[in-house]
Amino acid sequence: MAVVVMKFGGTSVANVERIRNVARHVKREVDAGNKVCVVVSAMSGVTNQLVAYVREASLLHDAREYDAVVATGEQVTAGLLAIVLQSMGLQARSWQGWQVPITASAAHGSARITGIDGSEILRRFESDEVAVVTGFQGIEPERQRVATLGRGGSDTSAVAMAVALKADVCDIYTDVDGVYTTDPRIVAKAKRLPKISYEEMLEMASLGSKVLQTRSVELAMNHRMRVRVLSSFVAPEAMAPVRLGQLEDIGTVVCDEDEIVESQVVSGIAYVKDEAKVTLIKVEDKPGIAARIFGPLADANINVDMIVQSVTPDGKHTDMTFTVQATELPRTLETLKAAKSEIGEFEIQSSADVAKISVIGIGMRSHAGVAALMFKALSDKGINILAITTSEIKISVLIDAAYAELAVRTLHSIYGLDAD
Amino acid sequence: MAVVVMKFGGTSVANVERIRNVARHVKREVDAGNKVCVVVSAMSGVTNQLVAYVREASLLHDAREYDAVVATGEQVTAGLLAIVLQSMGLQARSWQGWQVPITASAAHGSARITGIDGSEILRRFESDEVAVVTGFQGIEPERQRVATLGRGGSDTSAVAMAVALKADVCDIYTDVDGVYTTDPRIVAKAKRLPKISYEEMLEMASLGSKVLQTRSVELAMNHRMRVRVLSSFVAPEAMAPVRLGQLEDIGTVVCDEDEIVESQVVSGIAYVKDEAKVTLIKVEDKPGIAARIFGPLADANINVDMIVQSVTPDGKHTDMTFTVQATELPRTLETLKAAKSEIGEFEIQSSADVAKISVIGIGMRSHAGVAALMFKALSDKGINILAITTSEIKISVLIDAAYAELAVRTLHSIYGLDAD
Repeated sequence: MAVVVMKFGGTSVANVERIRNVARHVKREVDAGNKVCVVVSAMSGVTNQLVAYVREASLLHDAREYDAVVATGEQVTAGLLAIVLQSMGLQARSWQGWQVPITASAAHGSARITGIDGSEILRRFESDEVAVVTGFQGIEPERQRVATLGRGGSDTSAVAMAVALKADVCDIYTDVDGVYTTDPRIVAKAKRLPKISYEEMLEMASLGSKVLQTRSVELAMNHRMRVRVLSSFVAPEAMAPVRLGQLEDIGTVVCDEDEIVESQVVSGIAYVKDEAKVTLIKVEDKPGIAARIFGPLADANINVDMIVQSVTPDGKHTDMTFTVQATELPRTLETLKAAKSEIGEFEIQSSADVAKISVIGIGMRSHAGVAALMFKALSDKGINILAITTSEIKISVLIDAAYAELAVRTLHSIYGLDAD
Repeated sequence: MAVVVMKFGGTSVANVERIRNVARHVKREVDAGNKVCVVVSAMSGVTNQLVAYVREASLLHDAREYDAVVATGEQVTAGLLAIVLQSMGLQARSWQGWQVPITASAAHGSARITGIDGSEILRRFESDEVAVVTGFQGIEPERQRVATLGRGGSDTSAVAMAVALKADVCDIYTDVDGVYTTDPRIVAKAKRLPKISYEEMLEMASLGSKVLQTRSVELAMNHRMRVRVLSSFVAPEAMAPVRLGQLEDIGTVVCDEDEIVESQVVSGIAYVKDEAKVTLIKVEDKPGIAARIFGPLADANINVDMIVQSVTPDGKHTDMTFTVQATELPRTLETLKAAKSEIGEFEIQSSADVAKISVIGIGMRSHAGVAALMFKALSDKGINILAITTSEIKISVLIDAAYAELAVRTLHSIYGLDAD
């Protein structure tokens, strides 16, 4: 017997027929003797419709009212799934965030879960009742208002429920059957990773591999909750129910690195194409110049990612290159022009035709030469590196977007990730 | 200053543009210094969509889950209206049933309101905050589940809120501008009634004049809460705000008969065409025969309305005529056939081509001859009466449906209801 939290996103519950499919996944677990809490998102499209209503009502709107409206999407799914489960002969009931209760901070629209009382759900596990919980929402305890966690928050709801219920695993059902060494659409030889550490998954998630929401991985890491990525599109009866010790047979288990016996130096290659490069040319090289450039950008809430500073031959000027989200490029250029009096004279160049390629692996910590191998491989293919950033378990390079696929394939092969 | 509850139904909040129109009605009241609680229904069509989802999930469904799903419709409207009101510079917040709280019985899907704590809303009236409350729902206190009141329950929610807040009036906005002496589509000379008593309105409501839900009128009568029927389709700024003592200038005030100074003997003529007539011919006239006929119908939850029994010339048999809802006719015939062993031999005739015409007026209590005038007027037009029922303030006759309009026009004229 295992306690299992199962989370299903919007496309997995897009209509009643898909909800029936979800119910069969749940039934498989119950039939195997597992105790199940299901966390659901809104039917795909519903949240967008509700948000559109709110925007039509007023572009500037009270976040508490936005939450009251938008949170109804999950409430509909939860009730419908409970009904379908009952029609299959299972005991089930829906739980809205305030009913559990899941308490949340007052930051409406992007609230954080502050506590969960899972005692009543645990009590009902004893009589084999399935709990169907609305994702994405909680209740702000002081004013007793519904608070939503922000887009993608249902992953976080699921992990938080798993922690509260001391679950053995939190299974996140998606439209992919696991986490791969890289995007299979680019590299046919990409392999499913049976296990990946929280730290690696965090780098993957923040680097555009949109399988899991970053915050949910952080939460899982903090509480050492095993999270598994699975596909809801596999026939429910063709999938084995949760058995402890055999989790990695399907999907990808995100877990503590201690649980990964044979870890590879590099686990995966990630890439993003939605960054833009900005270069300020011939900025006067005076003390505090970086603050004068990046201060106004921070004030404008523009996230700067990679930064490279190079001094020009005259020694008095510097070129400053950095990247921002491509969608932020126009605002970035405006903000810099407005700050010209502080920064001084400069020329500006920008381009959205760049890609960031990242090599990720917890093994890097103990293995030297990973970066050198990367730089040489790219150089051998004639790919120019525009900027570099590194963390303990990741090396990212910025390159011309035209070479993105070539770079990913090259690195995937050179680090031994290609499937046989 | 008055405390006003304003209720808007589905067609009045059908989309964001219509919700904006509702907000202008509210603003008019706030600008006049009134304290306002608004009760809203789901946007028209939304409840039907949610019910369709539930039915698709399972035809036999847990009423508690049905309620969890269906109650979201009003929650969306309430949030949107609060946002629009705020955008007009008013203070407003939405209240879901469980937040007020409005407690309800555990009869999910057709729950009754058992209590309302309006103290927090009253406290916020002091700082001119508008309360936007979800109609149609409450919370069942023992299990803390959402419970809906059944279709049309938002009228009842509004009256219950008005009672809890000790409001001066409960204004129900509909798609008609008041209660008329009869259906203006049949009688062009029909007049708006400035006032009508609770008792008369109850007869009107239960007789097919679908302006107000019966239960809401009963509740208003029990608490002597003034209810006014108004049109939400009149331009909000063209309507006078609530002023006590001048309520009857627009719409129709449903109130205690003591408030109606010059009451007419007959206030209105109602008609329904959705009944069917059933006649059992030559039933053996033995003791308990009525129980043997109507017992099985009651067991099958079929409501019988009018009953006429006539003895045949031989003295040993009786003909039994009664009416049921036309939609129940097939089930009625089946049930009677199944009960043949108890009832004995009989022939059966049935027809849905009948109409029930009712003359309603609180003045009947003290005026004799109202019924005689009705029978004579119908007889003069050659209209045959198939059955008769009466109450203290109502006389109903069943006639051939072909004569329905003629009968209504004739009676409207003879009781002096025609407009000049």
